[in-house]
Parts: sequence; C-alpha cells; structure tokens
Amino acid sequence: MQDKKTEIPGRPFDDLNKAVGETVLVKLKGEKTVRGILKAFDVHLNIVLDQAEELENGEVKIKHSKLMVRGDSIIMIAL
Amino acid sequence: MQDKKTEIPGRPFDDLNKAVGETVLVKLKGEKTVRGILKAFDVHLNIVLDQAEELENGEVKIKHSKLMVRGDSIIMIAL
Amino acid sequence: MQDKKTEIPGRPFDDLNKAVGETVLVKLKGEKTVRGILKAFDVHLNIVLDQAEELENGEVKIKHSKLMVRGDSIIMIAL
Amino acid sequence: MQDKKTEIPGRPFDDLNKAVGETVLVKLKGEKTVRGILKAFDVHLNIVLDQAEELENGEVKIKHSKLMVRGDSIIMIAL
Amino acid sequence: MQDKKTEIPGRPFDDLNKAVGETVLVKLKGEKTVRGILKAFDVHLNIVLDQAEELENGEVKIKHSKLMVRGDSIIMIAL
Amino acid sequence: MQDKKTEIPGRPFDDLNKAVGETVLVKLKGEKTVRGILKAFDVHLNIVLDQAEELENGEVKIKHSKLMVRGDSIIMIAL
Amino acid sequence: MQDKKTEIPGRPFDDLNKAVGETVLVKLKGEKTVRGILKAFDVHLNIVLDQAEELENGEVKIKHSKLMVRGDSIIMIAL
Repeated sequence: MQDKKTEIPGRPFDDLNKAVGETVLVKLKGEKTVRGILKAFDVHLNIVLDQAEELENGEVKIKHSKLMVRGDSIIMIAL
Repeated sequence: MQDKKTEIPGRPFDDLNKAVGETVLVKLKGEKTVRGILKAFDVHLNIVLDQAEELENGEVKIKHSKLMVRGDSIIMIAL
Repeated sequence: MQDKKTEIPGRPFDDLNKAVGETVLVKLKGEKTVRGILKAFDVHLNIVLDQAEELENGEVKIKHSKLMVRGDSIIMIAL
Repeated sequence: MQDKKTEIPGRPFDDLNKAVGETVLVKLKGEKTVRGILKAFDVHLNIVLDQAEELENGEVKIKHSKLMVRGDSIIMIAL
Repeated sequence: MQDKKTEIPGRPFDDLNKAVGETVLVKLKGEKTVRGILKAFDVHLNIVLDQAEELENGEVKIKHSKLMVRGDSIIMIAL
Repeated sequence: MQDKKTEIPGRPFDDLNKAVGETVLVKLKGEKTVRGILKAFDVHLNIVLDQAEELENGEVKIKHSKLMVRGDSIIMIAL
Repeated sequence: MQDKKTEIPGRPFDDLNKAVGETVLVKLKGEKTVRGILKAFDVHLNIVLDQAEELENGEVKIKHSKLMVRGDSIIMIAL
C-alpha cells in the first residue's frame, strides 16, 4: 500500500539548510519569538542567528548581533 | 497468546509517509495548532509544512510559506 | 528470594499489539482524551488511530479519519 | 570506605517483578492515581494493569479492564 | 591548573550505595516528599523504599510497605 | 534543488567557541538571565561563566565569581 | 575564521572538579536553593553535598548532613 504514491518525502534539515543566509522567524517555548539571519545549525536544532531581534507582540524589543538558540527551546521555525 | 489474532500492526511513520503532499492538521503543546501541506519529516517527527497556517480557535491567524515544526512540540497530527 | 513466585511477567507492547484493530481510549498530557481504532504503533509509543475522536468531558468534540499521536504525549491507553 | 557495609543493594525492577499478579497503586504526574493488578512492565517502566481503576480523592472514578500506563508518566508505585 | 588540588572526587552512586538499609528522605517534583528505608536503586536513580511514608508539611500522610520511586521524579535525596 | 545556493552553513558550537573569553548574556528557563565571561562549555551546552551576574529586569541582582550553568536550562545565548 | 583567537576553551566539568571540597551554591528548578560542600559528582551532574543547607529567601531552612541532588534538577552551580 506504500507504493500508491510517487511523492518522495524530503527531510526537514534539507529545508533548514536552504534557509541559511536568509531571515527566519523562530517561535520558542514560553511565548518568546526571535527573528534573524540563519547562520548555523546542528542536528539538535541548535541554531545561530545573525542580526537577531527578540519580538514581543510583533514589535522588536531587544537586538543581538549574534544569538545562539538551544534546539530544545524551539517550537517552530518559519523558513 | 500472541497468535490469537492475525491483524498485522502498521507503523506510524508509514502513515505519515503516505500523507506527504497532503494537508495535515498539527496540534502542538501549549494549545497551538498549525495546518499545511506535509512536505518533509524525519524520525524525530520534525516536520516541514508548505503553505502553513497558524490557527486560533479554528481561524487562520498567521500564514507562513514554509514552516519547520520541531517534533518534540507535537502532540498529534490529523492525517 | 526472586524465585518465590512462578508468574511470568508479560511485556506492555504485547498487550498493545493485541489491541490493534480494536477501539482504545488514550489519555494525553494536558487533560486531552482521544478514542479510535488502533491501527499502528512503534517502540516510542507513537500510535495511529483510525476513526479518531477528540473527547471533552466524555463528549465527542472533533473527529479525524486518521490521527497520529506522538508517544511522548501519552499518559495512558485503555486497551 | 565502600567496604564498610555488607548490605547488598537490590535492583528496583526485581521488586517490580515480584509484584506481578498483585495489586499496585500508581501515582502519575498531574495528581492522577490508578490502581490495578500488575500484568506487564518493561525497562522504561511502561506497565499494564488488569482490572484498573482511576482514583480521585481515594474514590474509584473510572474502571478499565486493561490499562497501559506510559513509564514517563509515573511518579511512584506502591508495591 | 587541574593539578593544583589533591582531593579525589567521589561518585554520587557510591554515597547512595552506602545508604542502603538506612532511612532516606526523598524530595520529588511537585512538592511531594517521601521517607523510607533505602532497599534498592539503579543507574536511573529509580529507588525502592521499605516502610515508606508520604509526608505533607512534615507530617506522615500515607504509609506504603514498599514503594518504588521513578528516578525521573526525584529532585534530591537526604542520605 | 539543494545545490541552488553556495552558502556553507556553520555549526553553532563554532560560534560558541569563538565567544570564549568574551562576555555573553544567557537567558534561562523560568525568566532568569545571567551574564558573564564565557570560560568553558561542552557538547551538552553546559557552560561556565567567570565574573557572572544574575540579572533581574536588566539590573544586577547577585554576583558569582564563577558560575556553572546546566545546558538543559538554557534557552539562548547572546554571543 | 576559527583561528582568529588563541584562547583554549575549558570544559565545565574541570571547573566542577576543582570545586570538590569547597562550598557551592546550587539553584534548582522550582525556586529551590541548596548550599554545601561538594563531595561527589558524575557526568549527569548528579552531585553530593556534605553539610548541606536548604535555603529560602537566603535563610537556612533545613540542614542535611549529606544530600544527593539529581543533575536533572539543577539550573546552575556557583563554584
């Protein structure tokens, strides 16, 4: 029954890899949101953002030139 | 006693694989819900949705052209 | 002292396996309850239910033709 | 200094194994309590109870003929 | 710089091992406290207490002849 | 499709490594913030800060000459 | 770009090792704080403190001659 479709599923980290150098929006546990240019990531979904901004209700609250976010804290990333 | 039934259990990731290219509804921890076309997944249940929508009380609140959701955040996925 | 009883303990996944094709009730973290026909499971206790229903105070709230539930979200399953 | 005592420590799963076929009381995260006859367990402390009862303030609230409890949800088990 | 001291650090499980047969006080997540004679433990810090007492505000609330506590629930153990 | 970009993604721990000897701001679960000179780290993101300060609403509350922070507690690190 | 600095990062457990025999302050999840002489630790950051004190608002509340703290409960340790 698994052959009934021909679509080949991708892997999430391929999509993440394509987003390196682009701006991403990251939603964290505890209602935190950060935005920045994706610079680095690893298999644990630890990421580094350049020109990062902490957002609150859609407004920029704090800026960080470089921000490492622990993968464990991440809910989702808009690529 | 294990032989008394002939039903062969499937594996959840087979069902997920069949849903690639189709719209799925994903319920996350913290009462969040997202909906989109399943594009990619991995064994940690990290997924990527295309044309993703964040829902609140059943209404579309925010749209993302591509959204990566960390498996750890997922409660259930309606396939 | 370990030999004083002759009862041979079973393994939980044997019981789960026997429940494939039958209706199960699943209690999730955060006071959620779902019910459906157990279609698939894996060693992480990820499961797939057919004809799934989300329950609230014992009443059916939403129906899903197929629902994947992440094992990590599950508290208990009435077999 | 480790030799100053002669008591040989047991292993918790030996005690659990001896309780198979007997009634146990299981306290779960989120103030839930279940009671039943221990039928099966595994190394993750996933357990199966026969003739299981969900208790609330010491009173039986719901009965399940067979209940699988995810080890991760368990705080303690009175053997 | 690592050689500037000669003290040899012990291992926590050596101390736990020495406490077998003695009364220990165990603080659990969610403000629960139990006390009993340490009978068994494993590397996950799962423990079994004999003559266990659940305490509330320092007073004995419930007694269990034998209690298995999941390591994951334990904050600290006074040895 | 993965070849459409030439940017080579970095690894987060490379960025962390470059920050050794510099002041970093660490946001922890539970609304805690600490600041200090990054002295040491490991693959679990356990870190040691020299001349560490616990902050509350942006003001220094407590100082510690050396502080080890468990990786599991960390949400993000401004490098 | 990784060669632009010559500082060699240390490892957190080296710092912890140097603190054996000295008084440390340990902040735990759930606003608990304990203080004592570091006697033992392992790679999971399980630790044993001698002459341990539970603190509340900076004041000693309870004393324990020996206290094992589960690494999983620890937020940070002032060395």
